Amino acid sequence: MNKLLIVGTVAFDAIETPFGKTDKILGGAGTYIGLSASHFNVASAIVSVVGDDFPQEYLDLLTSKNIDTTGIEVVPGGKTFFWSGKYHNDLNSRDTLDTQLNVLADFNPIVPENFKDADVVMLGNLHPNIQIGVLDQMTRKPKLVVLDTMNFWMDCALSELKEVMKRIDVITINDEEARQLSGEYSLVKAAEVIHQMGPKYVVIKKGEHGALLFNDDHVFFAPALPLKEVFDPTGAGDTFAGGFSGYLAQSENISFSNMKNAIIYGSNLASFCVEKFGTERMVNLSEQEVDARLQQFKMLTQFDIELAD
Amino acid sequence: MNKLLIVGTVAFDAIETPFGKTDKILGGAGTYIGLSASHFNVASAIVSVVGDDFPQEYLDLLTSKNIDTTGIEVVPGGKTFFWSGKYHNDLNSRDTLDTQLNVLADFNPIVPENFKDADVVMLGNLHPNIQIGVLDQMTRKPKLVVLDTMNFWMDCALSELKEVMKRIDVITINDEEARQLSGEYSLVKAAEVIHQMGPKYVVIKKGEHGALLFNDDHVFFAPALPLKEVFDPTGAGDTFAGGFSGYLAQSENISFSNMKNAIIYGSNLASFCVEKFGTERMVNLSEQEVDARLQQFKMLTQFDIELAD
Repeated sequence: MNKLLIVGTVAFDAIETPFGKTDKILGGAGTYIGLSASHFNVASAIVSVVGDDFPQEYLDLLTSKNIDTTGIEVVPGGKTFFWSGKYHNDLNSRDTLDTQLNVLADFNPIVPENFKDADVVMLGNLHPNIQIGVLDQMTRKPKLVVLDTMNFWMDCALSELKEVMKRIDVITINDEEARQLSGEYSLVKAAEVIHQMGPKYVVIKKGEHGALLFNDDHVFFAPALPLKEVFDPTGAGDTFAGGFSGYLAQSENISFSNMKNAIIYGSNLASFCVEKFGTERMVNLSEQEVDARLQQFKMLTQFDIELAD
Repeated sequence: MNKLLIVGTVAFDAIETPFGKTDKILGGAGTYIGLSASHFNVASAIVSVVGDDFPQEYLDLLTSKNIDTTGIEVVPGGKTFFWSGKYHNDLNSRDTLDTQLNVLADFNPIVPENFKDADVVMLGNLHPNIQIGVLDQMTRKPKLVVLDTMNFWMDCALSELKEVMKRIDVITINDEEARQLSGEYSLVKAAEVIHQMGPKYVVIKKGEHGALLFNDDHVFFAPALPLKEVFDPTGAGDTFAGGFSGYLAQSENISFSNMKNAIIYGSNLASFCVEKFGTERMVNLSEQEVDARLQQFKMLTQFDIELAD
């Protein structure tokens, strides 16, 4: 079985949307990536850090999804990373109400021995130096390294971000961040500039407007599934990344053509994530539901115009 | 050969974008629809009105594209409808600088005798009473009636708009207008409400974010082709409608499955429209270019995930 190494926060979130609000619930990029990737036939592990306030039941939940949690350091007396945010009415934008780094401030990632030869490494949104620190521990060059990042690191750690970008194969980034990083408004031009910074593949996430995959002159687009109700967008991007990297780790084929499929699998899983608060929908998601919705994605996007080659 | 009857403005536009500005040039929904539909094997005619300030060369241009212009009334001493607008930097929004209705104020559409039995009627964006006036002249129920409209008529002629909506098969409308007309934010719910108002098919145009086709529980999505540069969005929605209705008039098959193809043909033609100012790109568009870009649309959207049925 192929190995997928995931680096990302395992954390508490408190979320407010127009539909309600939560107390501290399970969150974090690493959590969402792991839950999403658990739908594929891969051995996955999360590298992260929590405080000893982090409930054992949350770790047990991840273990029950066949995710190796030995790389999640528990800091005695430490407090777990906490994020709180409030979404605006259109759910496309949000305000951060509170960020408490806590144990994340001194996070020194330790890759478990048996994952230092992972086939695929999924670097969730974290300080670029942490992402580099993980790559430095790999004993074998991974077949694929995927990096997720955000505007925060462009603002305060751009040179470090540019360093890690030279060592990855795929970057996933949202549209506004792609524009910021490249200085180009057109996403086609932005992808070209970002491609020059290192990654062979550039994935631009547009939230409810879908996702674009660029590779040289090739481009592929996957829509977000139109939903009657989006309840909570938290974790959708990470769920997308987990589906994308999990599928590629399972299939071992990293051609552009197969990466298209990975984009669809990622979009498909993300469509569930937004249907309930936090991780609730992902924790209780059956393979039947996943397959049925993949069929919907096909109906949503596939047509039968025949063209002469 | 099947007949396509087009109703829409034939007009002068003056356009300003971040890339430059034009003097009075050829414009109007009827013009864009006609130019787009001319890429299909149909007999098409435009019903419209202009003043005698409208250059004969513009009418000749339409005729050269095999568009019947006998339904374009030329009002002696009248002035042609004029619209002027300025696009913002992101090209997604614009300010109207000037609107001179001129001969359009008293427009009484006259459908040419030989198009009163048209197979497909494309009602371009105009006062709903004019759209009804055209339908009243048909001597045979068309196989398909497509209506385009805008928020302006929702604001000032809503009851008339609701009347014409009861007599059409397909409505094309943008996302903000769909929300206004339905009172629903979710486009899935908006389409349901609009469907209840009459049209069996609801097409929601999202500009650079593509277009959605709804029919009961079925939904199809076509992206806009990602372009390095969008030069001038004027007429893109009408070009989409012209490709959609022209393709359906040609193929005679109005199943949902074939309507998907029509959405792709419309999106494909619209992708050219925005590449130059006004109608310039559409006037000089070869079938080879259209076919090559259809191939790009397939590569952009088609994937090969096999699923058990």
